[in-house]
Amino acid sequence: MILPPPAQPSQPVAQVDTPALLLDLDAFEANVAAMARFAREAGMRLRPHAKSHKCPPIALAQIAAGAVGVCCQKVSEAEAMVDGGVGDVLVSNEVVGAPKLARLAALAGRARIGVCADDAGNVAALDAAAGAAATTLDVLVEVDVGARRCGVAPGEPAVLLAQAIAACANLRFAGLHAYHGAAQHLRGVGERSAAIARAAAEAQATRDLIERAGIACPLITGAGTGTFAFEAASRVYGELQPGSYVFMDADYGRNDWEGLPRFAQSLFILTTVMSAPVAERVVVDAGLKAHSIDSGMPLVHGRAGLAYEKASDEHGVVAVAPGAARPALGEKLRLVPGHCDPTVNLYDWIVAFRGATVEAVWPVAGRGAFY
Amino acid sequence: MILPPPAQPSQPVAQVDTPALLLDLDAFEANVAAMARFAREAGMRLRPHAKSHKCPPIALAQIAAGAVGVCCQKVSEAEAMVDGGVGDVLVSNEVVGAPKLARLAALAGRARIGVCADDAGNVAALDAAAGAAATTLDVLVEVDVGARRCGVAPGEPAVLLAQAIAACANLRFAGLHAYHGAAQHLRGVGERSAAIARAAAEAQATRDLIERAGIACPLITGAGTGTFAFEAASRVYGELQPGSYVFMDADYGRNDWEGLPRFAQSLFILTTVMSAPVAERVVVDAGLKAHSIDSGMPLVHGRAGLAYEKASDEHGVVAVAPGAARPALGEKLRLVPGHCDPTVNLYDWIVAFRGATVEAVWPVAGRGAFY
Repeated sequence: MILPPPAQPSQPVAQVDTPALLLDLDAFEANVAAMARFAREAGMRLRPHAKSHKCPPIALAQIAAGAVGVCCQKVSEAEAMVDGGVGDVLVSNEVVGAPKLARLAALAGRARIGVCADDAGNVAALDAAAGAAATTLDVLVEVDVGARRCGVAPGEPAVLLAQAIAACANLRFAGLHAYHGAAQHLRGVGERSAAIARAAAEAQATRDLIERAGIACPLITGAGTGTFAFEAASRVYGELQPGSYVFMDADYGRNDWEGLPRFAQSLFILTTVMSAPVAERVVVDAGLKAHSIDSGMPLVHGRAGLAYEKASDEHGVVAVAPGAARPALGEKLRLVPGHCDPTVNLYDWIVAFRGATVEAVWPVAGRGAFY
Repeated sequence: MILPPPAQPSQPVAQVDTPALLLDLDAFEANVAAMARFAREAGMRLRPHAKSHKCPPIALAQIAAGAVGVCCQKVSEAEAMVDGGVGDVLVSNEVVGAPKLARLAALAGRARIGVCADDAGNVAALDAAAGAAATTLDVLVEVDVGARRCGVAPGEPAVLLAQAIAACANLRFAGLHAYHGAAQHLRGVGERSAAIARAAAEAQATRDLIERAGIACPLITGAGTGTFAFEAASRVYGELQPGSYVFMDADYGRNDWEGLPRFAQSLFILTTVMSAPVAERVVVDAGLKAHSIDSGMPLVHGRAGLAYEKASDEHGVVAVAPGAARPALGEKLRLVPGHCDPTVNLYDWIVAFRGATVEAVWPVAGRGAFY
């Protein structure tokens, strides 16, 4: 079941049913423009990550501002983007298993499709799938530059895999995927900068080895919202993949941003006070099914003395500090989600507003697209 | 977008696409039967909570086994249950705001509908909505018996609200909702028992006051999977509302169950090893968008020496202990989710299997139904 949208264009934001995912268009458009300008001035390709928004109208806005395409994490997410009009998608992840490989290869008949690999057997399977679909896939070697998740080790293992890809009839070796996820939320600017300096050095050394082996390595891609300025400064990376910058969230808000480009909070959860039983707390209608607390609690936006303290499945307990104005039963509050990506994935619709008025309601077409 | 089901009936479970939500029918049916038998032998009404499963076929199985109906937390969830054939739903929560009240009142034209209240203004709004829809709503006073969430204080505040409900032309005062959510995950049997003893005493005293005021109080309802045996033993409660018992999860697994009825783990996440870069870890394709970590990490089921250590949006890092068998790339693992309710809410389909074969694929009709 997909529920009907909680709002209609031209409706007052105050009338939007709750919980709802609100997007402040002024802040969103400024974020899209700022990242595009940064990439342009840095001479970098920009390929924003669509796993954050899963929403074709947002991808198209990013591309209109200069992005070369988008990243996705899953084949079904990439399908949603291509269905929505995106012509160039990098699945910045490994794709494993015959059904998914067949879908990925078929998608390459409708758009330019890239994918990552960190295993020689998987490379052979990618080649076979592309051959069966009579398509060609761009394949990047994923190198573990510090995230300790997927990816081969820098150096010789990456060279062997690049050689395997280059030898495949239906694959193009497209470069290195060197994303350092674990660095994005290191709080200090210096920590993040140092982590990316190490990552860039490992990626550079790996590229040198690959090119010495006679294989052109056209691109090193990576970076997220927490570190993109450091990848850009490295002169090693050629493409940036930030996703969260379009929305921002409470956890990114806890990073130190001194001296770095800043982005505005554009994403909010609209929630209603559904119970106000005592002076020191109110209960709102947005709990664990309306936002993800994996990176901490949401913040109550623009209201002093209110702290979202505890989430249960369908409730949020908001503490009211002594002396603070207690919201009334039925009043609507805005929350800044703790972590934007898994929060957006809970919603079928993004309610885009400007000022006090709903301007558009966009489908989260890739919601639940985890196959 | 709703993705197509990851499986078809009669398919081998091994072929189900991942991530997928698997339901072991033997364990599930035993759980449904065991709770129904417990309630019957205890002389209690059973009204299981559908917020856990959001799935009409499961609600109908519970009713076929003897449940009087189900609980829901949201109007849209109740609509999904009534659409699915359930004739008696208690929204065990407050409903606030004119659009939701109108839908709730309209739903009472299609099924018996109850709702909770903890505010006199909200009672008046419920009465007006039911009057406008020419329907009647059962209304229970929610009493805070320890959860410190919604609900009026026990005693006089509850009496005043019961009087207000009883005075409304379009509402029936249906009793007290005395659910102690915070007690469900107290680890020790003694702690949970003591918390419910206090809750039952407060509920009983409140009922006595209401009846002394000349208002019949037909029912005290509450209880969850962690405490239902104590509410049943109290001789105060008349109805039990457990939800998680059909599935169970890792967090309930950490409770002490000494001397209590036990339920089997029936719910699993099927996930694929998508990267196996080093000896000490593998990466699976189920991350924050495939299960909720609000109550801790999932467990790897039936595989010694594997520990799900870290979730990112689309990845799970599984540590392989020294000497443990490392799963191969492409191998499928079963995870026991940390918390069943918000995990189920991420899926459009439940893949119900028996032995090695898929038997049915059920829609999670209330997925995302948080309005």
